[in-house]
Amino acid sequence: MIKKLLVANRGEIAVRIIRACKDLGVETVAVFSEADKDSLHVRLADEAYCIGPTASKDSYLNFTNIMSVATLTEVDAIHPGYGFLAENADFAEICAECNITFVGPSPEAISKMGTKDVARKTMEDAGVPIVPGSKGIVKDVNDAIEVAEQIGYPVIIKATAGGGGKGIRVARTKEDLIKGVTITQTEAATAFGNPGVYLEKYIEDFRHVEIQVLADNYGNTIHLGERDCSIQRRLQKLLEETPSPALTSEIREEMGDAAVKAAQAVNYSGAGTVEFIFDHNNGNFYFMEMNTRIQVEHPVTEMVTGIDLIKHQIKIAGGEKLEVKQEDVKFNGWSIECRINAENPDKNFMPSAGTVEMYLPPGGPGVRVDSAVYPGYKIPPFYDSMVAKIITHGDTREEAIARMKRALSEFIIEGVHTTVPFHLRLLEHESFVSGDFNTKFLEIHDLTKK
Amino acid sequence: MIKKLLVANRGEIAVRIIRACKDLGVETVAVFSEADKDSLHVRLADEAYCIGPTASKDSYLNFTNIMSVATLTEVDAIHPGYGFLAENADFAEICAECNITFVGPSPEAISKMGTKDVARKTMEDAGVPIVPGSKGIVKDVNDAIEVAEQIGYPVIIKATAGGGGKGIRVARTKEDLIKGVTITQTEAATAFGNPGVYLEKYIEDFRHVEIQVLADNYGNTIHLGERDCSIQRRLQKLLEETPSPALTSEIREEMGDAAVKAAQAVNYSGAGTVEFIFDHNNGNFYFMEMNTRIQVEHPVTEMVTGIDLIKHQIKIAGGEKLEVKQEDVKFNGWSIECRINAENPDKNFMPSAGTVEMYLPPGGPGVRVDSAVYPGYKIPPFYDSMVAKIITHGDTREEAIARMKRALSEFIIEGVHTTVPFHLRLLEHESFVSGDFNTKFLEIHDLTKK
Repeated sequence: MIKKLLVANRGEIAVRIIRACKDLGVETVAVFSEADKDSLHVRLADEAYCIGPTASKDSYLNFTNIMSVATLTEVDAIHPGYGFLAENADFAEICAECNITFVGPSPEAISKMGTKDVARKTMEDAGVPIVPGSKGIVKDVNDAIEVAEQIGYPVIIKATAGGGGKGIRVARTKEDLIKGVTITQTEAATAFGNPGVYLEKYIEDFRHVEIQVLADNYGNTIHLGERDCSIQRRLQKLLEETPSPALTSEIREEMGDAAVKAAQAVNYSGAGTVEFIFDHNNGNFYFMEMNTRIQVEHPVTEMVTGIDLIKHQIKIAGGEKLEVKQEDVKFNGWSIECRINAENPDKNFMPSAGTVEMYLPPGGPGVRVDSAVYPGYKIPPFYDSMVAKIITHGDTREEAIARMKRALSEFIIEGVHTTVPFHLRLLEHESFVSGDFNTKFLEIHDLTKK
Repeated sequence: MIKKLLVANRGEIAVRIIRACKDLGVETVAVFSEADKDSLHVRLADEAYCIGPTASKDSYLNFTNIMSVATLTEVDAIHPGYGFLAENADFAEICAECNITFVGPSPEAISKMGTKDVARKTMEDAGVPIVPGSKGIVKDVNDAIEVAEQIGYPVIIKATAGGGGKGIRVARTKEDLIKGVTITQTEAATAFGNPGVYLEKYIEDFRHVEIQVLADNYGNTIHLGERDCSIQRRLQKLLEETPSPALTSEIREEMGDAAVKAAQAVNYSGAGTVEFIFDHNNGNFYFMEMNTRIQVEHPVTEMVTGIDLIKHQIKIAGGEKLEVKQEDVKFNGWSIECRINAENPDKNFMPSAGTVEMYLPPGGPGVRVDSAVYPGYKIPPFYDSMVAKIITHGDTREEAIARMKRALSEFIIEGVHTTVPFHLRLLEHESFVSGDFNTKFLEIHDLTKK
């Protein structure tokens, strides 16, 4: 059993993890950068320590300082949240060496899934459908041309060490490809320290559908259904929902089985997400990547299944067996999450840091708020611009949408620009309401105010 | 279908009703007293009108002004909330005369249940168990003595027009009774305009358990399980939960059936609550009263059933059929509500009006907040002292309690005293944790801080 846990993160996810710990009776240690000393996660944790200057590399990514606090405070475990060190196999390894439980899968599982071409190969071997493409890293430009001609243009060039929308480039012609491979290799070498790139057939009209999995250390792996994250801007998710309006129950089951296979192929432990490209024109789906951590959008799954994912992460990391069986998982109603960012949606989503003068989150039935903002909070310009996740639940998609519109319309956050007005326009848009859209929704429909 | 609705109330219940209307796409009209012009319900409604000075009798109880606004704004319906005009048969009658739908049962149902001795008689005739006592109003003191000797002391003297803990007196001896009947009659004549009193056997060791019912205008009546409201201070409920830790599934079913019978006996329509005295020593229960309105504690039922009671009230009043059947009602997990009052629990719960300097309601999974408070809100000293209802949900009672403790501990409300510290002590108390207590919990256990 984990008795004391260090939260190696900030913002809403740090608050979320502290809440789960309080629900479990686990003591908490927060860490913070100099810019975050007045943060809510610092206030809510049992103990809190500064781990360095504002820059993430000096604080939230600073192994040494985080491990010092962990040792000093004698925690049993570290929860990395998402981002920062969440998918850093070296950090997971160091935790193990220090005899501190890393709340997440093994370093090997992180590595295998983090290296995209290895992940592709592992999935192929496990019988999980993958997008046609190169067998591993392309050797050189000529190799890439050969593969592209085999699978047909357009193709997508992906850095094996990339992720989160970075290190990706589309090539529609041979010329695009020659240029693209070279540029992506150079960029990837600089950004990720690994120049390897591979090719995949570029599927243009698809939905982003992902499956939440949960696995313990005793070979039990289940899935908790899907999340549809097709509403994206420049590969950043803005709104997520479950169930997906595009899935039939047969495809849901197939995709769930594929995700469980994917997790089992790397002896996965804890909460993870297998992302798929879902070709809604023919019902095919292909492995995109596996995120070996909790995701921003995890609450929609919690809302429809009633299963607290962070509590399960902590219990599993503490050695508990997964008490929920696949057949026990019931999906109840519909849930939507809107990510509210401190950005001006009508000025190209320009970040809008500053002091939140007035703040009142929405409430009432079917509304959940995950946020680290409070009245008077100064949003620092150095980190992610997300200020709140508003999650609603309803019996039907219509009810979940109606409650989201209500929640957003009563949400008071003054002093900074936010994406609330953008989300209200999105929720009113007939394509969104119809449920029939793909990942290009925001390229096709301009929702900025004229 | 109701298209536009006037909310004849204030505070959190006005906000709650407006939220339900927004979810349904119904336009809203708020009314407010002079003291409430800066209230949240005024801000959230589509339209808002002042209906008079601060005193309730001149505003929230002012039939004429409320009906003027209703007529002026051309609403289809009036939702009375709880308190004020919610159980006023005359008001319901006037609504009907003005061709405006009163969201609630018929004036006849309100009257029958509002006159306690009539309610007792109606229940007896319908086969709902009642506490042994007088057949209707006692004629005089001698009649009372005769009844008391028949059923045995102690007895309880109740004003037929009383309610909410008013017009009630216990008599343990003949002397008590003689004095008590006379005093209660005199008081009731003054307070309620009706001197009638009746007698019941006084059950000392019981739990307050009530059943939520929902009925449409087509003869369909269902129940949504119980709420245990045994934690009371001077007959005011402080914490409610569902399910009741004291009920077996057999008793739950019997009590549910009795409540449905009770509602059917008065052709009930809408949401109502049948309150029972539950003798946990022998499993017997007796009709206490029926509240012919939505109750403060309705959210715990919503949390475990997933059924939005206010939406159902509005739909039923609009002529819709109840689409939920008894067998569709599923009870999922456990829910607790804490009523947070602006009172100083360590100074005899003295009301603490003033400005809320800082306000941040709790959030995260399993937490719902129903409140009309915002940062900078001035709590007026003229009305009810309740400032927020914190409702939590969990798979088990333990989880619901843990989440409530977490929610209360992160709740920031500064500038006024509140009962948050009191509730935290209550949630830690071993008797509360055990689930084994009765309505005298707070008489037996002193939770004020020394």
